[in-house]
Amino acid sequence: MVEIKQLSTRDADFWSQLDALLAWEGVSDDQVNQTVRDILGDVRRRGDAALVDYTNRFDRMQATGMAELELAPDALQAALARIPAGRRAALEMAAGRIRAYAEHQKLESWSYTEADGTVLGQKVTPMDRVGLYVPGGKAAYPSSVLMNAIPAKVAGVRELIMVVPTPDGESNDLVLAAAAIAGVDRVFTLGGAQAVAALAYGTETVPQVDKIVGPGNIYVATAKGMVFGAVGIDMIAGPSEILVICDGQTDPDWIAMDLFSQAEHDEDAQAILLSPDADFLARVRQSIDKLLPEMGRAEIIRTSLGGRGALIQVADLDEAARVADYIAPEHLELSVADPQALSGQIHHAGAIFMGRYTAEALGDYCAGPNHVLPTSRTARFSSPLGVYDFQKRSSIIHCSAEGASALGRTAAELAGGEGLSAHARSAEYRVKK
Amino acid sequence: MVEIKQLSTRDADFWSQLDALLAWEGVSDDQVNQTVRDILGDVRRRGDAALVDYTNRFDRMQATGMAELELAPDALQAALARIPAGRRAALEMAAGRIRAYAEHQKLESWSYTEADGTVLGQKVTPMDRVGLYVPGGKAAYPSSVLMNAIPAKVAGVRELIMVVPTPDGESNDLVLAAAAIAGVDRVFTLGGAQAVAALAYGTETVPQVDKIVGPGNIYVATAKGMVFGAVGIDMIAGPSEILVICDGQTDPDWIAMDLFSQAEHDEDAQAILLSPDADFLARVRQSIDKLLPEMGRAEIIRTSLGGRGALIQVADLDEAARVADYIAPEHLELSVADPQALSGQIHHAGAIFMGRYTAEALGDYCAGPNHVLPTSRTARFSSPLGVYDFQKRSSIIHCSAEGASALGRTAAELAGGEGLSAHARSAEYRVKK
Repeated sequence: MVEIKQLSTRDADFWSQLDALLAWEGVSDDQVNQTVRDILGDVRRRGDAALVDYTNRFDRMQATGMAELELAPDALQAALARIPAGRRAALEMAAGRIRAYAEHQKLESWSYTEADGTVLGQKVTPMDRVGLYVPGGKAAYPSSVLMNAIPAKVAGVRELIMVVPTPDGESNDLVLAAAAIAGVDRVFTLGGAQAVAALAYGTETVPQVDKIVGPGNIYVATAKGMVFGAVGIDMIAGPSEILVICDGQTDPDWIAMDLFSQAEHDEDAQAILLSPDADFLARVRQSIDKLLPEMGRAEIIRTSLGGRGALIQVADLDEAARVADYIAPEHLELSVADPQALSGQIHHAGAIFMGRYTAEALGDYCAGPNHVLPTSRTARFSSPLGVYDFQKRSSIIHCSAEGASALGRTAAELAGGEGLSAHARSAEYRVKK
Repeated sequence: MVEIKQLSTRDADFWSQLDALLAWEGVSDDQVNQTVRDILGDVRRRGDAALVDYTNRFDRMQATGMAELELAPDALQAALARIPAGRRAALEMAAGRIRAYAEHQKLESWSYTEADGTVLGQKVTPMDRVGLYVPGGKAAYPSSVLMNAIPAKVAGVRELIMVVPTPDGESNDLVLAAAAIAGVDRVFTLGGAQAVAALAYGTETVPQVDKIVGPGNIYVATAKGMVFGAVGIDMIAGPSEILVICDGQTDPDWIAMDLFSQAEHDEDAQAILLSPDADFLARVRQSIDKLLPEMGRAEIIRTSLGGRGALIQVADLDEAARVADYIAPEHLELSVADPQALSGQIHHAGAIFMGRYTAEALGDYCAGPNHVLPTSRTARFSSPLGVYDFQKRSSIIHCSAEGASALGRTAAELAGGEGLSAHARSAEYRVKK
């Protein structure tokens, strides 16, 4: 039996129950903050020497210099040649689809010319160099390498540097193979806050990057937060979430398994089902109890569903859409007869999986769209990782003599209102006498 | 005499001198952090009551409730009617140009259909509600209201809420008039960390927003950093900067004044000139000394140019472009005969002002592009504020039965490699038998 909460929007305190269910704050405690601050400062001061020290200590290595902490250029291709053919084919198929989708996201430069010859526009350029953090050990996900690396390469990033810890010297062939397929340029076997510091500040061996992306543990996330500003970072993700809206006509085993596929990530993951059909909710509950024992990660799923999951009865699908918009879920599955109509009512979600066939798991691996998505209600203001996260814009202003003269008068008037006399004079110099 | 540094790229230690010149780190000290943390917590717990208390204390007000800290709906229009006609016309002209440029930035939804009927795409939606922080007192800039508010409204943000402190009850008509022109929906006379807290968490009276933008002092910047995650924020800006590249053929008075227009912002502002022409650098130095006494903010300019400014001799314009790309300046002025050719060599800059007529001051007010730009070398990875900062994307995945079957096989294979059995099973349910 899984003790999963059951709520109803008819409950008088529904919204406060929902808020309590959604509440989650990742907290770096003082000890983590201090440890990370020390490591960042040390790597910034001592460079490679500090990297070697921390890596030997935390990853139980015996490196004598940075040369031993960088993979040889052919190591990735060698891993690709070693993995089973079926797995390689699946990775290549996924990479092809991720790349095809990403190509649609490329931003282009634009400009327009005004009547007096003044040109205005925006020039779009890729970042020069990007760092990709990849966790080592059991949380090593080759799919994550593809999802983070491919958009950067499609954007035109010149050099993509991956860091991945190899505790006790152990590396993961699937991760290295994914890096080969994605076009990663260099790989350092570094992890933790020291790897983030190396990428953010640069050392004798590790070049400074412009942005760091990729998931990591609390030390990595804290380090990314602290180096933000020196370099760009991606979102710091909270636990993964799924919200399923079902009209009651999908096989309840399918819905139970879709909830499991989220819950198996970790104990803090959140899986919520909304349906207007109380009988259906009961059948999903039965499917959960029936299917759980067959799962490899049954205990994680039980903890996650028991602590943070919920089955919620709604009045109808319109109300389900309103609840979904409030939650702004990372993954939203619309397992209904007319997903197109329902999605028109949804404004805030990381990714929308439409119809009974579109399991979230398909999107996690190979449908094409990115699986790095905004969590913890941040879909209200942020977007999936994409090519646009590796491009940036420069405004272009090219005034003709006539344009500058006309704009100069207005600028001088407004600068006067703000008490900025040098601004006013600089503009007036360009006004025709 | 202004003591402005003179460097040359031929100096053996040029790059380390340049690094020292650029070095700037905004530090919130422990005391600021603790004060802000206390205020955020208090507003979160006590809501309106805390807002009234802090506002009375910090802004020397005697409000008895939040009703006195919100402007009446007609207050903005009344301010617009009060300001001088010339200033109103200039604000309206600037707003029209900012809006016209912003319209070019709107992102559109897109999708494509694969051979088996699977649809993939991205849906673009505006944020629901945005908060705009506007400083009070002497740093009250109506141009900043236009630059922050107009892109949000062009994006389609439903409700734009402005907060502006009114110390001793004093408000700025130009700021309120700009808010009227820009279409701001509600205005609270709140400032500091308490205003940021109200927007981030919501109170009985102030609605929670999805993103907070706009400049502020160290308390405001620290508060924005702390609430990030609960809401989105814009970049936290460092001191403003200009880099001018001149071939030596522009009137040296113009170039001196362009440097002044940056330096007059504040003592930490940075103004740097690059030229291959040593004589020209000497003439600009003369113009600086000649023109400085005529400036309203002469002492600020003297401090800024003396502490953080520099005249740098480069070998040629190609080298100037390389130095510029390293600096990744907020504002880059290409005061040369062929700015088009030179700009092709520039990859990192917030805004590029092309040709001798395009003074930065024109862009600060009314050319059209945004004046909220990445500072402190962050143009390596970030962009001007724009409509896209108030829109977000949701991935769309709608698999046909055939598409789900094919993708399901690949997803199951990859999930197997990652040891996620519920992912695999969820995908396999959609594979045709």
